[in-house]
Amino acid sequence: MHKFLVKCDEALKEISAQGRYRRFVALEKLADRFPYYSVTMEGRTRDILVWSSNDYLAMGTDPVVIEASIEAARRMGAGAGGTRNIAGSSPLHVALEEELADLHGKDAALLFTSGYVSNQATLSAILNSLPDWHVFSDAQNHNSMIVGIKDGRKASVHVFKHNDMADLERLLAAAPADAPKLIAFESVYSMDGDIAPLKEICDLADRYNALTYLDEVHAVGMYGAHGGGVSERDGVAHRITIIEGTLAKGFGCHGGYVTGDFKVLDYIRSVAAGFIFTTALPPPTVAAALASVRMLKADSARRALLFDRAETLKAKFRAAGLPVMASSSHIVPLMIGDAAKATQVSMRLIREFGMYATPINYPTVPQGTERLRFTPGPKHSDAMMDELVGALQKILLSEPAVTGA
Amino acid sequence: MHKFLVKCDEALKEISAQGRYRRFVALEKLADRFPYYSVTMEGRTRDILVWSSNDYLAMGTDPVVIEASIEAARRMGAGAGGTRNIAGSSPLHVALEEELADLHGKDAALLFTSGYVSNQATLSAILNSLPDWHVFSDAQNHNSMIVGIKDGRKASVHVFKHNDMADLERLLAAAPADAPKLIAFESVYSMDGDIAPLKEICDLADRYNALTYLDEVHAVGMYGAHGGGVSERDGVAHRITIIEGTLAKGFGCHGGYVTGDFKVLDYIRSVAAGFIFTTALPPPTVAAALASVRMLKADSARRALLFDRAETLKAKFRAAGLPVMASSSHIVPLMIGDAAKATQVSMRLIREFGMYATPINYPTVPQGTERLRFTPGPKHSDAMMDELVGALQKILLSEPAVTGA
Ligand SMILES: Cc1ncc(COP(=O)(O)O)c(C=O)c1O
Ligand SMILES: Cc1ncc(COP(=O)(O)O)c(C=O)c1O
Repeated sequence: MHKFLVKCDEALKEISAQGRYRRFVALEKLADRFPYYSVTMEGRTRDILVWSSNDYLAMGTDPVVIEASIEAARRMGAGAGGTRNIAGSSPLHVALEEELADLHGKDAALLFTSGYVSNQATLSAILNSLPDWHVFSDAQNHNSMIVGIKDGRKASVHVFKHNDMADLERLLAAAPADAPKLIAFESVYSMDGDIAPLKEICDLADRYNALTYLDEVHAVGMYGAHGGGVSERDGVAHRITIIEGTLAKGFGCHGGYVTGDFKVLDYIRSVAAGFIFTTALPPPTVAAALASVRMLKADSARRALLFDRAETLKAKFRAAGLPVMASSSHIVPLMIGDAAKATQVSMRLIREFGMYATPINYPTVPQGTERLRFTPGPKHSDAMMDELVGALQKILLSEPAVTGA
Repeated sequence: MHKFLVKCDEALKEISAQGRYRRFVALEKLADRFPYYSVTMEGRTRDILVWSSNDYLAMGTDPVVIEASIEAARRMGAGAGGTRNIAGSSPLHVALEEELADLHGKDAALLFTSGYVSNQATLSAILNSLPDWHVFSDAQNHNSMIVGIKDGRKASVHVFKHNDMADLERLLAAAPADAPKLIAFESVYSMDGDIAPLKEICDLADRYNALTYLDEVHAVGMYGAHGGGVSERDGVAHRITIIEGTLAKGFGCHGGYVTGDFKVLDYIRSVAAGFIFTTALPPPTVAAALASVRMLKADSARRALLFDRAETLKAKFRAAGLPVMASSSHIVPLMIGDAAKATQVSMRLIREFGMYATPINYPTVPQGTERLRFTPGPKHSDAMMDELVGALQKILLSEPAVTGA
């Protein structure tokens, strides 16, 4: 047997032994009944109440967004049929880029096939532009940023302690004064639900003449008066060099983007491999995203409802004595601390109570901090929350612990 | 001004000076009149006949495919709402993976957000699995493969001359006999239109105990009795370790995939960052792709028509004395040899004749080999071709050369 096949076999056994082998639950979103999904398990089809969608604002199932997708499919078909340069750019792509630039108060925007690719391709392009970059990367940055940063072969990488301004300043001060510098960070960290001190980071960037790269993937659509993210909420969008976002979470569709100065984006457009060498987003997706961004710019009530729902669930978890983690965002993580147990709790929730929350394990979070992650949205009612709390109490508080942890 | 902004400015000036600054033409695909697109240029909106779509078989505008997209949007909404692990897997994703595995006669398939990501993420995952990989990469492999291979930090990379079996064998023979080896190559090379000798590569792989990774992006849907690609046509699919493809070209939709042995794919599923950390493909796209793959499995007539159209255009180009490049595939490239001239020919074609073919320049092809690339499909008639030939003759053959080249 080829060594690689042996390796696959061994690695899979190890993953299973660690209780972190992933089985994807096939969930069929019910557009007209979201957050209910239809699930077939063990021969039985049931409607399951899902607590883990990153369609945070239920925009993916909004009739206006769906109609935009349908209209574009009818008019332009199912796929773009080419890269942006090879017949794949449409007026829809251009309009969405204009809308996103406007959302963040920037000159220009550039669409990518996903938020993952936007981070990887853009950071890689920036860090390969000059021979002596120093990049300062938050310790909890998303894998897509880390991979993009690693692609910058000649860049010196400094990882600063998560959201720790003293550590960031220490590292900035130690780097050569005249080297080009970039600080890369997120606004809302999606696994813990905490938020970066954007203003302080901008102040440090000014002091040390650093550019700033901000991932607002878990904030766009949701934070700020128009859904421009935490940078809009905190009034610092104009101080950030590049704001990156996704169309797949708050906006409920698919795709990623970066926004910034015209020249910077024109440079990225011209050199970023992950932008150039891939088929453009399909027209139905672009049309749906355009409708979603436009709608959300004006819909502060939906945003308010999101935060109301998240705060309500946090309060109910706390009142019930459940191990809810501190979170200053719309994300509600519940600490379990063990991969096998997290999976088991999730399975009992779906089997016995008809509700679903994804167990989050390594490599998404560090080992020993496995958790269930809840993302209540505008359509999760108080009654649903009470049902969830009851179920979790039965599973977590009245049973003997599954492991020694 | 920050050094990076200076760099952007300089680089853009240089790109312009080289005549390879890209202006995307915004083309609005007309689903019911494909390959006509609506284009607004210089204040005028016209229907343009497009010759450069990679929707090779016009599947993206097929009514069955469009209806599948619409039905899924109505039923499940515009976006998946999560990664495959976090509530983003649906029965549609599972069904499409099964369909693709079956198409290539493999145990299993894995969907990615694009063909680009499938190459990058899979090659990176394989080459980081063991410390001593030797990878043999065709000199004309696509950027997405090159980037994935570079991600394998510890792998020894050997680039063999394009489609040159003697060179490949020389490199295989020189590598340590017991090191794990992988040969990475494409079937149809999309810029020249030539095809790799798959059987010979498989023979060498057997002789040197190497695994094989085949990119069939420009072949799936089009080659083989069921659209399984050149590996199906040549009867070697069972000898290839991993067959990779896209849903965005022959299938007319969006997304990428790999197929292979169950354990290998389960390993990739469990470790490939570009698979794990990104939102799953949206249901309308997956449904459209599923309909397209199923349709094309049975539609050999459409495939036959594609080749008939390509051969007809090649013959007409040759008869007219146009510099058509040798191509053994459905791709019809016309050599121009200069970036500025290629762009100028393309612009005259659209302005004066209402037809569009993308100029292909660096970094997509080497400098000095700039070209126009034509991809005639089932909907390009003989009359359209005659019109095109007439226009190209006027532009290319009866005018003084634009450059000294
Ligand atoms: C912080 C962060 N950035 C980027 C991404 C990638 O975005 P997308 O799902 O659009 O690829 C994710 C998650 O998916 C994320 O959590
Ligand atoms: C050979 C090859 N592989 C992979 C890709 C990427 O596929 P996708 O457009 O689905 O990202 C392309 C072109 O786009 C290609 O030409």
